[in-house]
Parts: sequence; C-alpha cells; structure tokens
Amino acid sequence: MLKSIEGSPLYPIVNPRSVVFFGASNRASAMGTSQLLSLKVLGYQGAVYPVHPKETTVQGLPAYRHIRDIPEIPDLAVIVLTAPLACEALEECAEAGMKSAIVISGGFREAGPEGAAMERRLVETAKTHGMRFLGPNCIGVANPHQQVNTTFLRYEGNPGFIGLASQSGSYVTQMFHYLSQFSLGFSAAFSVGNEANVDIVDCMEYLGACPHTRVIALYIEAIRRGREFVEVARSIVPHKPIVAYYAGGSEMGRRAGFSHTGAMAGPDRLYDGVFRQSGVLRAQSMTELFDFCMALGNLPPPAGRRVMIQTHSGGPGAAAADACGRAGLELPEVSRNAVEKLSPYIPPTGSTANPLDITYSRNVMDYFLKIPKVLLADDAIDIFLFYILMPSDMVRASFRDLGVPSEEVEEKSESFLNNLSSYVAHLREEYGKPLVGFTYRSFNERFVAGLLEQGIPVYAGPERAIRAIQALVRYHEIKSKIRN
Amino acid sequence: MLKSIEGSPLYPIVNPRSVVFFGASNRASAMGTSQLLSLKVLGYQGAVYPVHPKETTVQGLPAYRHIRDIPEIPDLAVIVLTAPLACEALEECAEAGMKSAIVISGGFREAGPEGAAMERRLVETAKTHGMRFLGPNCIGVANPHQQVNTTFLRYEGNPGFIGLASQSGSYVTQMFHYLSQFSLGFSAAFSVGNEANVDIVDCMEYLGACPHTRVIALYIEAIRRGREFVEVARSIVPHKPIVAYYAGGSEMGRRAGFSHTGAMAGPDRLYDGVFRQSGVLRAQSMTELFDFCMALGNLPPPAGRRVMIQTHSGGPGAAAADACGRAGLELPEVSRNAVEKLSPYIPPTGSTANPLDITYSRNVMDYFLKIPKVLLADDAIDIFLFYILMPSDMVRASFRDLGVPSEEVEEKSESFLNNLSSYVAHLREEYGKPLVGFTYRSFNERFVAGLLEQGIPVYAGPERAIRAIQALVRYHEIKSKIRN
Repeated sequence: MLKSIEGSPLYPIVNPRSVVFFGASNRASAMGTSQLLSLKVLGYQGAVYPVHPKETTVQGLPAYRHIRDIPEIPDLAVIVLTAPLACEALEECAEAGMKSAIVISGGFREAGPEGAAMERRLVETAKTHGMRFLGPNCIGVANPHQQVNTTFLRYEGNPGFIGLASQSGSYVTQMFHYLSQFSLGFSAAFSVGNEANVDIVDCMEYLGACPHTRVIALYIEAIRRGREFVEVARSIVPHKPIVAYYAGGSEMGRRAGFSHTGAMAGPDRLYDGVFRQSGVLRAQSMTELFDFCMALGNLPPPAGRRVMIQTHSGGPGAAAADACGRAGLELPEVSRNAVEKLSPYIPPTGSTANPLDITYSRNVMDYFLKIPKVLLADDAIDIFLFYILMPSDMVRASFRDLGVPSEEVEEKSESFLNNLSSYVAHLREEYGKPLVGFTYRSFNERFVAGLLEQGIPVYAGPERAIRAIQALVRYHEIKSKIRN
Repeated sequence: MLKSIEGSPLYPIVNPRSVVFFGASNRASAMGTSQLLSLKVLGYQGAVYPVHPKETTVQGLPAYRHIRDIPEIPDLAVIVLTAPLACEALEECAEAGMKSAIVISGGFREAGPEGAAMERRLVETAKTHGMRFLGPNCIGVANPHQQVNTTFLRYEGNPGFIGLASQSGSYVTQMFHYLSQFSLGFSAAFSVGNEANVDIVDCMEYLGACPHTRVIALYIEAIRRGREFVEVARSIVPHKPIVAYYAGGSEMGRRAGFSHTGAMAGPDRLYDGVFRQSGVLRAQSMTELFDFCMALGNLPPPAGRRVMIQTHSGGPGAAAADACGRAGLELPEVSRNAVEKLSPYIPPTGSTANPLDITYSRNVMDYFLKIPKVLLADDAIDIFLFYILMPSDMVRASFRDLGVPSEEVEEKSESFLNNLSSYVAHLREEYGKPLVGFTYRSFNERFVAGLLEQGIPVYAGPERAIRAIQALVRYHEIKSKIRN
C-alpha cells in the first residue's frame, strides 16, 4: 500500500498546481470549453492556461499558441482534441517537460484498428518521457476538496469521502447530483477510460492512501490486471473498505461493456472469485454501491451481527425483520434489564420484542431518543435500525395546534427538526454503535435530510438498509480475516 | 369473479353513502377524531354522524347519544373505541339494522385469550345479523375516487389505479405520500387487520371487479384461506394483474408478522408455490410491489421479451444490458432498415447496437423523439427502455444562452419540459408498445415528473426498471396461460 498520495504518479492528475487546456475555446458548446468552465466554477485556485491556435483569450483567460509560450511548465495537461491532434498535443507536453495528462478525446482503441494505433502512440510518448496519463476516451477527474473538476458537468454538493474509480465517465459526472441528494460526495473520482497508461488498479492505490477517502467505490466493466488488482485491494482492505459494482456479469452486460471500452469482461463467477479473494464487497447496482458507501463511510464497526429494529408500524417492522432473516443477520432479544427501563415508553398495545413496536408514536422524544438510548446501551445489541415517519407537515401542524403564530411555524419546525436530527446523530458518538434509519418518505423531508447531513445513513425502505448493514458487517469480518 | 362491485358485501365499506363514527370527539389527539377529519378533509359528500356519550357537536357536526337517535340507518359504522366498547357498538349497529362496519380498535386476538374471546363476540354479532365488518385491529379504508378515507392520515396525491389489500395498516396510510412522489395513487385500499370477518381474499375479489383498479397489490403476512386465495386470484388474473409482497418468508419475518396480526405464516417456498399457482407476481419489497404496479397499470402488453435500450452514456447502458441479461430478457439487434433511418441522429462515436448509445446528447428532440420513433416502429423491438438525464438546470441555462429574458426563463423551461414529456408520453399511444425510463436524478425534476404524471414509468436506476419490465412480460405470459 502507498504511504501517502504525494508519492503517487496520480497525485498531479488529481491535485494539479496548474492546468493547461487543449480544446477549450470561446464556443460555449465545445466540450473542452465546458470542462474549463467546470474547473473555474468550482473555484480552482491554480493557474489555468488555455492553448488555442487563434484566440488571444479563451473564456476570459489569456490563451497561448503553444505550450512553449506558457510562462511555467504546467502540472497537468487536459486534452480535449480529436484523436490525431491529441497525440500531437501529448508529444508537445512531453517535450516541454510535463509529466501528467488527461486525454479526454475518444476515437482510440474503442474505435477500431486505426484508433488502436494512435493509442499505442500515446503510450509510447508517455513511456519515452516518463509521463503518466489518464484515458484516452475518458471524462477526467474530480477532486472537490481541491476545487478540481475537469469533467464537462458542474460538481454539485459538498466534497465527501467516497473515492471512485470508474470505467464509465457517466458514473463520475452523473453521480454528482445523485450523491448530493443524500448529502454524500466524492473525495476524488477518476474516469479511467481506455486505461492505456493509468488503470483502475493505480486509482485504487491512490485512493487507498488518500486521506479524504473513507471508502473506495469501483465501477468495473473488466479488470485488466487481475493479480495486481487482488494484491492492491488486499493491502488496502485492512485500512478502508472497497466496494465494486461489476456490469459485465451477464453475456449481455459483457457485450455492452465491450463496445463501450473495448475490454473483454469475464464470467460472473470469475469476478465473484476475484472480489472474494480481494476482500472487495460486491454491490448489485450503482445505487447499491453508494448505499454501501453511505454505511461504510459513516458508521463505526459493529461488534457483531445482532440488529435491533425499532418501529411504530407493524408492516415496516415485519418487512425489516424478514430482510434481516434473508441477510443472515440476527435479531437478539432485548435484555431483561432494558425491557424494564423501556416500560414507561411502551403503550399496552406495544411490544418489546424485536422488532420493538410501540404501535403508535406518542412522543417523538421517546421514539427518537429515550428508547434508542436504552437499546443502544444494551449489550445484546450491535446495530440499531429505526423506522422513520416524521413528516415536516405534521410537525408544522403540531406547532400550529400549540398556538405558535403562523409566521413562525416554518422556522420553528425547521429548527425543531434540525435539533432532533442532531440529537439522534449524536447517539452514534455517545454509544459507538452503528445507527441506521429507513423511511418511505421523500428524502427532502427536513428530518431525514438533517440525519443525512450529519452522516446517519437513511435508506428508502428496510431492504436497502439491511443490505447496507450486511455489507458493513461483512466488511468488518473480512477486515479481521485479512489482517490475521 | 365478481361481475360488479355493487354486488360485493364490501361495497358499502368502501363506498358508503353515510358513515356513523364511534370514538371521534372534540379532542384533537384522539385517534377517532383524526379519522373523522381525514374523511372530511378529503371532501366526502355523504352524511357523517358522530356518536358521543356527552358532546352535542363533534368537530362541528351534530353528535348523537345513540345510533337510534340518527335520522337514518347509516351505511357504514367506523368504530374506534376500546375493545369491549367496540363489541357493544357493533351490537348496537346490528340491532339498528346496519349491515357494514369497520372495527379499527385493537386489543382483540392479537392481544391474548381475552381479546380472542371478544373477537369471537364480534364475529357472532355479525353472523347473527348478516353483517360484514373489516378488522378489528385495522386502520380502515381509502377510496379517493369517492373521497372516502377512514384512516388517521390524510390522503395525499390524486386518486389512482392501484387497488391494495394489506395486512398492515401502515402500508395503507404511509403509502399515500410514497405513491404521490411517483404520481401514483390508490383506486381503493383496505387494511384488513385481524381478518375476523372480511379477509384479503374478499378484498381481492372486490378489487377484481372495481372499475378504477387496473392492478391489485397485496401486502401479506399470512394467507388464511389458501384454496380460496388461489381460486379467486386465478379468476382475476386473466383480467388484471395481481402483485404480492410476502413478509413472512424468513423465520424472523414469520415471528414479526405473528406478533403483529396473530396469524402464522408459512415457509417461503410454500408461498412461492401458492403465488405461482395463482398467477400472482411476487415482489421482494413494498417498493418493488409499487414499481411493478407502475408498469403493469400504465403500459400496453408487450408482444414479447425483446428490449431496446437507448442511452447517451456507456455506463448506464452497460448496467441496463447486464440487468436485462440477468432477468432473462432479450436485447434484439436493430433491424437494418431502422439502422439506416437512425444514421442522421447518431454521431460517429455512437453505436446502433443494443444498447443504442449516441455517446452524447446533441439534440434533445433527436434523443427523446426522433430516435425513439424509429426504434418503436421496428418490428424487432417489443419494449423500449431509455436513459434520462435531463436536468431542469441545463434547460434553464440553454434558454439563458439563447437570450431569453431572465424573468421568463423559469416559465419557458417548465413549459418546454412539460411539452417534451407529453410528446414522449404520446409515443406509447402512437406505437402501442411499452415505454420505460430510468434516471439517477431526483424525481422532482420537471421532465421526470411530467413523464410520471402522464403515466410513463420512470425508475431510479436500470435494475428497478428491468425488474418491472420483467414483471410486465411475465404477467402477459401468465395471463395467456391461465386463459387457455
């Protein structure tokens, strides 16, 4: 495992001190322009040098005819030209003494034999000059912690803790918004494209050492260096979890991936074996990949697989229990001592079994704080899963019923729900146990949004919550095995 | 199968001309009060008669000491009293000549032997007087087409086409909001509780005949009348699809269900067999139950299982293709004739394979209309699945770039996106083939919301879309088999 990211050849690619852009212009619709603007909009602090054959300024920045005209040797080149011009640009960069590039351009190996020849030329250039480059046929990188985004979509949301290496560029850019819906974000994200020089294993190595990355996510259509993948993954897994979604498992997925990146995938079982050997958790979809990341990056290690379910609704409780059963998790009995302490909060219709079902919610403070405190303190319980039905509407109605003037209702409700979510989030620190919520309501609801902002995972439905809990439990089992 | 709902003993329970309420009062926090208010708020047109031992008016309505004092024999009684009082109330209703009731009250069989005795008393009363009742230990019914809602939560959204019979009350009320997020709604929904007199089979029979119901959804913890379940389901399935989610499949789910409704569930395989024999589609979660309903209630029958995937992003295309492979669906080649017609719309980097990947979206009209029209006209294609990335932000930015005054941008974008979604929705009618979208963006985005409002199913990610397509294909296969 890498000791620090500064030692990685990928460091300047994703933390450049300055960037030269090939392909940005004053045409708003040009892809290179969008990419330059993404970088500017995010507030990138380093110097940005557009190279352009004709213009003297590009998007308000002084433009240069040739890389030689730039007053310094830039740290990183971003190349968004046609394939033949991209080859030339990379050569010019190499000759100017540059060491790092991102080749966004398509039209290489994925386009046929002629493209493959040009790709070999890129590789040759890099080899001769000791250069490293990402791509070609990729979308670039995002490192929101350093205000870096070389992709053509604007970064949305905050910097986060998910380090992504993806064989699909869409699964970098189009996840900016997706993740922001759950208050998640990238620590660093790489679109590896054709992996001519830098591949998914290199990225994994970088992310293993990256201090902002708490969990590594991989989108895989084909692994090219199997042995190295296993070795690098096994060196990282004792320190941080790795989750992978593999889209080449079926014959049809395999064919689709092939036409996309030109790499041949293997059968599902083979990849299952590779992941198992590597200690990598396998997700069944991109949404599940990030579901797992949300739990793995936010939650302390569980002591075991004993899950306590709390609900005030029988159906969601039964569905959660059933999902636990299917996932091989245990539903312990609440200890006698805890049952006694719970009695003031449980109405006669309720049950202190597991699921603990209070049948209706008399008092939100009981439901979200007092009962959880008793359960989290119980040694019989490793993980706490709770059902959330907390519509902002209902809170507003309660404030109105209490006679709060209508112009203050909105603010009072927001602040009440924010405080409540802070108190709940604090339980994780107080008890050091994983805390997970599930709901069927919109994730825009203030209480749910508040929990997510404070790193308490909440899932749409019990099944997703429990799959994520299962991944968390498995990770800590794998980790202790790999360590020994 | 029932010929018409008017012939069903459940008709007055879910289409009452007048309602007598036991348990509503002037205390806002009383459960009976919430239920009476839910009915009023929805705009129920029939007469509502609160019975109250002391008050002369309840929530603004004249209250009656005794059911005898009411000027007519009400159509339906809603009883929200303690268990012993509920027994008395049902007797009074029966003696007054009433034929239908909903017993919301808990504390019956699910509470132990004493409760079980009281439940027998309810059954006896009904039997003696030829009465039918829903419950006890239930939450009532919702029929938004008739402005009927006897549950304690307000109905949200519009009347819809999903007929639900649920062994969990929460999965009636707490789904009002859930469904409204997808522009879905109930045609009629029953919380069956302890099923002392009316059970899930009776409800299924009613929903089979209900003209507003296009698809029947069941939440099941245990089936009590197995043989009747199979018979009734098989008589309905040739006319409309039935989807079930069963929460008792694992030992843990079984135990949770038992403590919830007092019914003993059976092993997973047994239920798998029952569902297969009945022609009922099985969903793996409540979210999946409604995912299936969205496709089954909105889409025309597919001629086969050949799915065309359209994307402008390789990753989502590969993931969709892989999910198709796993679901046993086919990805046909686009016919030569169609490939020719597509050529003006596909850039050189693109592919007319399946997934058809245009690699980037040059023109939204091409992507959402012209290309789909060619593909939908192709005889090789039964079902059309398309990837959606259509942020409102981007549309607003385009209008701004075109020089539209900033105060008009919002309105112009909304109207553009609404029109575009209407055009896309119209393709379903024009070609008579199923059309399904998937996205990773928020369902609040205008274009996605527009599609959902017009009954084009859109799912969060390709896997959910394809599971729903698989259910649609399976339903039409089952239907043709049961018919023969």
